[in-house]
Amino acid sequence: MYSMQAIGHVKSPYKEARDVPRGLGAKHEAEGMLAILPEFAPGLADIEGFSHLYVLWLFDRAQGFELVGKPPTDDREHGVFATRSPRRPNPIGLTVVELLHRDGPRLHVRGIDMLDGTPILDIKPYLSSIAPEKLRRGWLAEAEARKK
Amino acid sequence: MYSMQAIGHVKSPYKEARDVPRGLGAKHEAEGMLAILPEFAPGLADIEGFSHLYVLWLFDRAQGFELVGKPPTDDREHGVFATRSPRRPNPIGLTVVELLHRDGPRLHVRGIDMLDGTPILDIKPYLSSIAPEKLRRGWLAEAEARKK
Repeated sequence: MYSMQAIGHVKSPYKEARDVPRGLGAKHEAEGMLAILPEFAPGLADIEGFSHLYVLWLFDRAQGFELVGKPPTDDREHGVFATRSPRRPNPIGLTVVELLHRDGPRLHVRGIDMLDGTPILDIKPYLSSIAPEKLRRGWLAEAEARKK
Repeated sequence: MYSMQAIGHVKSPYKEARDVPRGLGAKHEAEGMLAILPEFAPGLADIEGFSHLYVLWLFDRAQGFELVGKPPTDDREHGVFATRSPRRPNPIGLTVVELLHRDGPRLHVRGIDMLDGTPILDIKPYLSSIAPEKLRRGWLAEAEARKK
């Protein structure tokens, strides 16, 4: 077992899970803030040079986990590691956000899909992308095709 | 404080930190295996449809953290959240791997940069990319330009 601590919290327009856009074609264009605790703020030095960041955060309102379940994007069941379900063995969320600007320990970002108050575990620079033509998206692509 | 547990371990050709290619232009083409514990294996259902996966893992051999430090890619200091340093407040690593094939609870992958035996915390499908022309890579792009 390993212990993790919050380095800050998300300020989000979403107060409850049902507020977050979900399902096929959901867009995450919401703006919000990553409020980093003062004691960790020196770790943000030079972050403003990056256009996009990975945010690792905690699904702190998820209870327990489910190895197989039905995501909002499909009417079929899939393994939890093939989905973005919050009910994971380790309830860590991962979101790519666009960094709009930094105001001291506060990062203003676009692309929030976390709830207000979500604990942040880590922030990393987004450095490179997999070319879209190399991506296969399994059951999600199939679910999209069925709904067309 | 939040507790995390390993869902499996990485089989990697890298036995020690100095074996892992680092610095500017380092390529991570190594093949390895994500060996998932039998009790979590049902969570892998349908994962073989995805070409690329996010692997969240633990820097289990890093000791403590450093909010500002010099990465192997530069001779200048940067904040830890603007780098991929292992010495982070929450020592979670993030790697994008290509899924080559699945053999029961074992995922054969390309793009390993973890040490052999690294605990795996989570696996998620890689669904979309930020277009390269939209990416800014801050100090890393500057360090690359200086070394040309």
